[in-house]
Parts: sequence; C-alpha cells; structure tokens
Amino acid sequence: MTRFSFDLTATDGAARTGVIHTPRGEVRTPAFMPVGTAATVKAMLPGSVRETGADILLGNTYHLMLRPTAERIDRLGGLHRFMNWDRPILTDSGGFQVMSLAELRKLTEEGVTFRSHIDGSRHTLTPERSMEIQRLLGSDIVMAFDECPALPAERDRIAASMRLSMRWAQRSRDAFGDRPGHALFGIQQGGLEPDLRAESAEALRGIGFDGYAVGGLAVGEGQEAMFGVLDYAPGQLPEDKPRYLMGVGKPDDIVGAVRRGIDMMDCVLPSRSGRTGQAFTRRGVVNIRNARHADDPRPLDEACACPACRGYSRAYLHHVSRAKEIIASMLMTWHNLHYYQELMAGMRDAIAAGSFDAWEAEFHATRALGDIDPI
Amino acid sequence: MTRFSFDLTATDGAARTGVIHTPRGEVRTPAFMPVGTAATVKAMLPGSVRETGADILLGNTYHLMLRPTAERIDRLGGLHRFMNWDRPILTDSGGFQVMSLAELRKLTEEGVTFRSHIDGSRHTLTPERSMEIQRLLGSDIVMAFDECPALPAERDRIAASMRLSMRWAQRSRDAFGDRPGHALFGIQQGGLEPDLRAESAEALRGIGFDGYAVGGLAVGEGQEAMFGVLDYAPGQLPEDKPRYLMGVGKPDDIVGAVRRGIDMMDCVLPSRSGRTGQAFTRRGVVNIRNARHADDPRPLDEACACPACRGYSRAYLHHVSRAKEIIASMLMTWHNLHYYQELMAGMRDAIAAGSFDAWEAEFHATRALGDIDPI
Repeated sequence: MTRFSFDLTATDGAARTGVIHTPRGEVRTPAFMPVGTAATVKAMLPGSVRETGADILLGNTYHLMLRPTAERIDRLGGLHRFMNWDRPILTDSGGFQVMSLAELRKLTEEGVTFRSHIDGSRHTLTPERSMEIQRLLGSDIVMAFDECPALPAERDRIAASMRLSMRWAQRSRDAFGDRPGHALFGIQQGGLEPDLRAESAEALRGIGFDGYAVGGLAVGEGQEAMFGVLDYAPGQLPEDKPRYLMGVGKPDDIVGAVRRGIDMMDCVLPSRSGRTGQAFTRRGVVNIRNARHADDPRPLDEACACPACRGYSRAYLHHVSRAKEIIASMLMTWHNLHYYQELMAGMRDAIAAGSFDAWEAEFHATRALGDIDPI
Repeated sequence: MTRFSFDLTATDGAARTGVIHTPRGEVRTPAFMPVGTAATVKAMLPGSVRETGADILLGNTYHLMLRPTAERIDRLGGLHRFMNWDRPILTDSGGFQVMSLAELRKLTEEGVTFRSHIDGSRHTLTPERSMEIQRLLGSDIVMAFDECPALPAERDRIAASMRLSMRWAQRSRDAFGDRPGHALFGIQQGGLEPDLRAESAEALRGIGFDGYAVGGLAVGEGQEAMFGVLDYAPGQLPEDKPRYLMGVGKPDDIVGAVRRGIDMMDCVLPSRSGRTGQAFTRRGVVNIRNARHADDPRPLDEACACPACRGYSRAYLHHVSRAKEIIASMLMTWHNLHYYQELMAGMRDAIAAGSFDAWEAEFHATRALGDIDPI
C-alpha cells in the first residue's frame, strides 16, 4: 500500500511545487481543496468537481458529526463511499467551526462543549473525540484539534491559546496512533507574533507530524497582516512536509500565499460566491446579476473551457441567477472551481519552469485590465 | 430541410408508437417532455436531461415573456441557443398559465390582459401575440392560444369557453402563417362533455393543424374522469397527427393515457417532486426524507442506471435532502426524469412488440409490491 508521502519537485524562490502521495491518489501542489461541508461540494456532482481539476476535497468535522453523524457515515462505509468521491479527503478538526457556528460553547483544558446550531443537541469535542470522528469518517488527512482566537486579540490571550493548542496537538498525536496511509497534520498558532509562531512551530516539530498548517489566519486580520505572517511562518515549519494555509482565500490571497511557500489551501469562496452570482475570472470579479449583463451574448471568459463558459452567455447566467434557478448555482460554482484549479495549475507550471515572477506579474496585469467592456 | 412530419410506426389497441421528425431531431413517441419553465429544467444541465433520454423539452411562454422576455431571447439567438439545448422545443401558448398564475386578469374576445406575478407589470396576450412570442423564442412546436376553465364548471361556461378557444385557434392558425420546419398544434376543449369535445375536434380539423392536444384535462377532474374523456377524445382527432395530453402526469396517468392513444405528454411532477424529496420508482413513490432511509445503504432502485442510483445510497439522498443541499435536487430530479424516460421507452418497445397489455400488467404488479422493505 502507498504510504502518505510528499515529494517536493521544484522551488522558485519560496514558492514550491510537488506531489502528495496517498493510497487514494496523488495531490498536485500547490493544491486548492474545494469545501464539501456536509458531504457535498454545494451545487456540484463529485465527477464535476474532479473535472475542474480538484485532486482532494475538504470535509467539515463539525457539520458531519452533527448530521448525519460520524458513526452513521462509518456504518455506511466511510465518507468517500457516502459522498461518491474516491480520491483523497482532508477533514478539519471541528475546532474552528465549533467556535464560529455552535451555541453555548464552553472551553476547558479537556476540550469544548457546545450545542448544535441545527437542533440544539449537546456535544463535546476533545482532541481524542476529534481523532475518533475523523477516523470514522475515513479521512486521508486528519487535522489536529486546536483552538483559534479571532484577531485582533491580546498577546497573552494568543499565547495561552497557542499553548493550549500545542497540548492538544500532543493529545491529537497520541490519539491518532499509527495509521499507515493516513496523515496527521499539526497546526501552528501564535497570531501575528513571530516569537509565538516560532514557539508553536518548535512544539509541533517536537511532536512530529506528516504535514503542518499555518493556522489562525484568515480570521479578520486582512491580507497585509496575513502576508506579513506568511513572510516568515512557512520557513519555521519543516521543508520536507506539506504546508497548509486554512480557509484561504481570494485569488490574490492564494497567489500571495503560494509565493510565500504554501502548498495547500481551501476556501468556500468559489462555491459560495457562485451561489450569489459572483464569478471569478482572469480579469477580476464579475457580478452576473448586474443589469449590464442582461443582453450580453459573450461568455464570462472567452478563454475559459468550463461548461458555463462553453455553453452559456452572460445574458443567460444573468437571467437564471436573477430568477434564482438552481442551474445558476450549478454553472457559476463550476466556473469558479474551474477558475481556481486553473489558477493552481498555472502556478504549478510556472514554479516548475522557474518563471513564477513572470507568471505573477501577468496575473496582476490581467486583473488590472478589469472586466471586459459592456457591449 | 426536414419538414415537420409524424410517422406512426405501430399500434397496439389504441396505443401508438411512432416518430416525429423535425429539423432539430426526432422525437420518439409516446414522448414525455420535461418542463423547462424559465429556460432551464430545474436542477439539471441540458446535457443531463438528454442523458435521461429526453428528445424534446417544453418551454413556458408565460414565464419567458415576462423574464427575460421573448424579444431578448430573440436578440440572443433564440431559446435553443439561450438555454443550450439544440433539440426540439415545444412551447405552450401562455393561456393556461396566465389564468393560473397572473394577477388582475381580464378576459375579452380579443385576448387576456393581466399583471405579472413577478413585478406587477401589465401585459396582454392574444392569439396573435402568443404566435409572435413563440416565433421569437424559436419554438419548434407552437401551441394555439386557448382558454381553459377549471373543472368542475357549468356546461354553458365550458361550451362558451370552447367556442372562444376555437375562434382563437383560427386566429392562431392565421397568425402562425407558413413556417416550414415548425409545427402548430390545435387544442381540443369541451370539458367532460363528449358532444362539445366532438364539436371542438371538428372545428380544429376544419382549420387544420400539424398536431392536436387534448386540452382542459388535469385541471382537478381526477383520473377516472380524465380517462373517461381519453376513452373517446383521441379518436375524435386525426389519426395521422400527434396527439398531446397537456400537463400529465403521474406515472399511472401516463400509462393510462398512452393506452388510450396519446403520443406526447409533459409535466413538472418528476422535477418538482425531486426537489421535495419524492422519488418515482418501479415500485411506487419513495419519500426519501422519511427516517427509515437514514441508515439504508441501498440505492433508490437496484435496477435503475441513473447517476443517483449508481453512485448513492438512500442514506445519502436522505441526508442531503434533509440538509436541503442542492445536490439532493440534482440527483433526485435526475432519477425521476430517468424513470419517466425509461417508462416511455418501455411503452414504446411494448407497443412495437404488440405486448402492451402484458407490459401494463407488469407495470401495475410491480407497483403493487410497494417499496422495498426497510433494512
């Protein structure tokens, strides 16, 4: 059986490209992971997600533990079979979403108790329970259970939270055990404080993980502050393991993160935006519900090969998005996920060719043109 | 260029099978037409609709004239290009839906004035305007503009309405003109009254159409009364033209209509039911939101080859339908449309083989088994 491993095949400055090997297939990095929160990438069939170029999906422990429950998914053969996706799945630990979605949260050294936002039922998440849930789901890449304060926060609060997360990281490692073919990633915390980030990285390296996330970002600090951390944080983590930036982001966030040495990212933005009529294109964001598209026979992007751009005009997408037809969510999400995967493929090729600077300049120059002129 | 024509290839009792030839492709009859109300079969991509076996779609004049408007669709190259469906489209006349959906309706000899249910704007539909709209849409099969009273209704009301519809049928015929490759269908009215049905059929035959609909049914009269009319009404219409039963129906309605000589049908039921968690199977209706499916690893129907049945358990469909995920509408609609097309294909084969009675007995016997036992 293939063991979990990471081959770094090329670098260009801090930017890296490589391949993560798993028993369920390869993940080309830098990788963007579409989010399949409740065992579905919203408005997409799994085969269509794969057609966009995705190698791996993200599943949300918090949502799945509440409905349909990890135990039920296990009885049904695991998350891959349940949602009809046979390639790798990364699951988050539930920690972040408990803090942002659940009600009546109570945080202790042991873990977090909370009430479900769906039906008010009471639950507990601990490092041990998070590992159990992610094992029941059959996750290929398991995330350590951590705690993440919203920014801005006091330095003392950030330090205490980071140290709790490091104790939880050790408990996650202990509870995960030895599971060949499955990976456990640790999560660096420390807010915007370089010394706390260094302390966190040192703790994680001491425990030892198959990959490392830069956590605690994309929580309201803004792009400049995030890039400030990414200028040094990836370098504090082991070079020979994948580095994952959680919950990022907009296309320019992603490009900036890859430039700074990030290998994996996930975000709901392309799918969520698709459902609200926002399209990402090489030339920026298009709000398809804007009246200027009502008579426009052109596709979202002439150069895009996705089904939305090959088969439909802006006028059609405008019509179905305004009419709240499901096909609008289907086509716009497909386009956005396709765009994101094209973005990643472009960066992988550029890094391999040693031309990331030129690629990035072109990326920004094309966006600076703005959307095509109205007809 | 292919002209519009109908080849009746076999009969079995009153049941018929054949092929409608159009410049945009053939329609195998008996045919079920999925409804693409607002230029989309809800929750389906056109390629997927075709994969279910559909040869032809129905578009709604009322909805499309209001949004995005027929003139806009014409400027964009017609409805086929707009919605990315290059096979035949039948459009209704708008008459029925004005009476069921629009506000502040006023009916005169000239036509109907009403306010849009979307934005309150004022519109008029006449036979001439309906023909113009359906021409702008690029419809392959155009329906005459008619008026249809809800049942039960007084005989005098039904007779007066039918005669108005016959005058409008003549005006529709005159306004339609000569459009090679495009067909105009007349609509028989007359409620549940055999002599009024005969009078209507005679009037339509005198005008001359490319096909004939049995109108004014599926408006609340019940299956027994509908079949009562279908026992004689199709026989009042020309044998060598397609016969279309509008807005029907449940699977057993469809089978009963085909047995009585109907060639074409349409209904929102398979798509609408899919969005509310109802699946049609050989063994009857399954409400996938019922708790008994929560742990069921079996597909909706072991014998079904649709993507929902090949890739997903009842437990998954239960989960996503309860969680109101878009994929639930996508998969359930696909299954239902696939089931309906399989039903039509089964009847076409049985009629061609002269074994419709045996096929129908098997259809009813399988349904009588009820859904599979809970696990």
